[in-house]
Amino acid sequence: MNYEAFFEQAVSALKSENRYRVFADLERVAGEFPRAIHHTPEGPRFIVVWCSNDYLGMGQHPAVVGAMTETAQRMGAGAGGTRNISGNHHPVVQLEAELADLHGKEAALVFTSGYVSNLTGIATIAKLIPNCLILSDALNHNSMIEGVRNAGCEKVIFRHNDMAHLEELLQAAGPERPKLIVFESVYSMDGDIAPISAICDLAERYGAMTYIDEVHAVGLYGPRGAGVAERDGQMARIDVIEGTLAKAYGCLGGYIAGKASVIDAVRSHAPGFIFTTTLPPAVAAAACASVRHLKASSAERATHQQQAARTKAALLAAGLPVMDTPTHIVPLMVRDAELCKAASDRLLDKHGIYIQPINYPTVPRGAERLRITPTPVHDDALIAALTAALVEVWDHFGLPRAGAEPLAVAAE
Amino acid sequence: MNYEAFFEQAVSALKSENRYRVFADLERVAGEFPRAIHHTPEGPRFIVVWCSNDYLGMGQHPAVVGAMTETAQRMGAGAGGTRNISGNHHPVVQLEAELADLHGKEAALVFTSGYVSNLTGIATIAKLIPNCLILSDALNHNSMIEGVRNAGCEKVIFRHNDMAHLEELLQAAGPERPKLIVFESVYSMDGDIAPISAICDLAERYGAMTYIDEVHAVGLYGPRGAGVAERDGQMARIDVIEGTLAKAYGCLGGYIAGKASVIDAVRSHAPGFIFTTTLPPAVAAAACASVRHLKASSAERATHQQQAARTKAALLAAGLPVMDTPTHIVPLMVRDAELCKAASDRLLDKHGIYIQPINYPTVPRGAERLRITPTPVHDDALIAALTAALVEVWDHFGLPRAGAEPLAVAAE
Repeated sequence: MNYEAFFEQAVSALKSENRYRVFADLERVAGEFPRAIHHTPEGPRFIVVWCSNDYLGMGQHPAVVGAMTETAQRMGAGAGGTRNISGNHHPVVQLEAELADLHGKEAALVFTSGYVSNLTGIATIAKLIPNCLILSDALNHNSMIEGVRNAGCEKVIFRHNDMAHLEELLQAAGPERPKLIVFESVYSMDGDIAPISAICDLAERYGAMTYIDEVHAVGLYGPRGAGVAERDGQMARIDVIEGTLAKAYGCLGGYIAGKASVIDAVRSHAPGFIFTTTLPPAVAAAACASVRHLKASSAERATHQQQAARTKAALLAAGLPVMDTPTHIVPLMVRDAELCKAASDRLLDKHGIYIQPINYPTVPRGAERLRITPTPVHDDALIAALTAALVEVWDHFGLPRAGAEPLAVAAE
Repeated sequence: MNYEAFFEQAVSALKSENRYRVFADLERVAGEFPRAIHHTPEGPRFIVVWCSNDYLGMGQHPAVVGAMTETAQRMGAGAGGTRNISGNHHPVVQLEAELADLHGKEAALVFTSGYVSNLTGIATIAKLIPNCLILSDALNHNSMIEGVRNAGCEKVIFRHNDMAHLEELLQAAGPERPKLIVFESVYSMDGDIAPISAICDLAERYGAMTYIDEVHAVGLYGPRGAGVAERDGQMARIDVIEGTLAKAYGCLGGYIAGKASVIDAVRSHAPGFIFTTTLPPAVAAAACASVRHLKASSAERATHQQQAARTKAALLAAGLPVMDTPTHIVPLMVRDAELCKAASDRLLDKHGIYIQPINYPTVPRGAERLRITPTPVHDDALIAALTAALVEVWDHFGLPRAGAEPLAVAAE
């Protein structure tokens, strides 16, 4: 049997659809972000990164890097085991206390990634609720979809942020049926925000439990950086808050926070938590330092919002097709996989600006885009250079300006 | 609806079965391993860890810690994105090249954990093979079981290491059916080893693809530490080798290695790879340093085997019920969840020796044990102290000695 042919064919199919991914070989330089070294066949060169999820540049913050190096020197590299078998180190215990406090919840539980938090968190919670019905937003992230799928219980999908549809489904389920609503606060690709208060209203009216993914919001919104639910005064109404330590907090890992009983049950039953090595002490300590810093300091959040707004304004003024979002995420629509890749390549090669093309399956076909993520360290000069480079690339490829007809959506 | 009651009940059930897990709050101290600080309500104190999966103590190796701190200082804390979106940093690219070389394969792919490697690796490989039948060893780890389940294709379970049964199932599937055999080299709880050569013979005879989990073997076996398949001269016959960076290599992360076509297909299709932030540069660099060191040095492996053999011999000489394993893992059978926990507690409280009780679901009910993992830094004096402490605990609780009748296996 020629097994290799199956794999070659799978990759060829991607290439023919212009969605074969080539990873840029990057070397981050602490203190230089958003500049980074790009390793190419012609040698290394400095470029400017405009698509990082290190939204506040906390990955290079001295307090974060300092905690990481100090802890590695003092405690060594790895955790040496699962949480249960010798891997429950002091920094992860402290991190969980910090996260519980951040969200005003009784307890928190750290996972090796946000992906695993959702995957095993949602699945375990739903499995522990007899006859649970999951109500899931149509645009939920892949990790949430996998969590819902792994729960093995009945699920219904409500149209994205559509409260009438959600209410209809809650009503149809009946008051006696246990129900879990899973949704995000900030949807990462379109940068829009869920009506958290309205979802909580419905959850209370129909007796549903709520699970929110705040991975693109923690550190970034709310007076202490606890997310959009904090900003909107809704945090106490949400049962389970899921977040990440790998984006605004600049490290690695994911977590959930909620009532002690819920967290203890997940801790005791979730396979993706039980059977995996704990995050290294140095990573947990770095994340803890980052959470603590952003609890006390709002300066990064304010500058972040300001530079994101300035970026949007500059691109709009240049007639570029920016999707108007209420968040820090700046999607620039191309709507064609091949052109999106070509635009990204030209930005990098000619202008030294790195913005990865976002193609299917991360976004639907026909919704291909450049997803721009300004940070507090993308200053006005960088915004001006970005705008000029994008105009050159848009002109070069004859890409549509704002208000022009979108390109035909790929067949499917 | 009182959702909290569901979670409270789930935890109560564990408590009533004596398998509620209490995590020891530990502080590793680089240079002092296997000694660590145990944080208790009465304050911190030094204990000796005898159940770590940092099998060679590489977590405190100066080359590993040095790579971690140097890289964190130079590149910052987190990766800042998924592999595709700005998170493909130079240290992880170098690590993958190192791992491919280690296993003599064309390519390797790094995941955030060994758990995720198996979960998304097995599922993706099997999904890319049309009409795939998975043949899975009965004692495979939870992460492999989840991978098989997520593949969504037909599966059959062969009795643990039973070649006659595996052949029977391969034969029944017929020569035209694509088949994937998934198994481990070292089974972590019993410490036994798969007949790799015989499995490869069968795979070749019946046209099956092979996937081996070497997480409890990489770094530890073979002239360059590539695992039991390397030691047995079988590495080139295996299609996909999965390993971890979190045990013998002392860091965090997992990987697969194989033909370029297979690795590229998994890289392009595996959700648990695509939709998650890359390991931090500092963790990848530390893991790379560890792999390189253990490729060149066999001293740690030799001392590891020697101290494991001495530990087994000392416990057997004291009449303790050690399971006789061909590996570095030393299971000491208790066969009762409550007594296993009580023995562990007494070891820790009275003797300052930490060996976590292993209960269901990590092992079957009735197979509860203390799982002892000697390392090169557990010297002869520590082995003598361990033996004396275990004898005291065994006498205190009247636990069965070797050759005595095992306790009744818990019902179920």
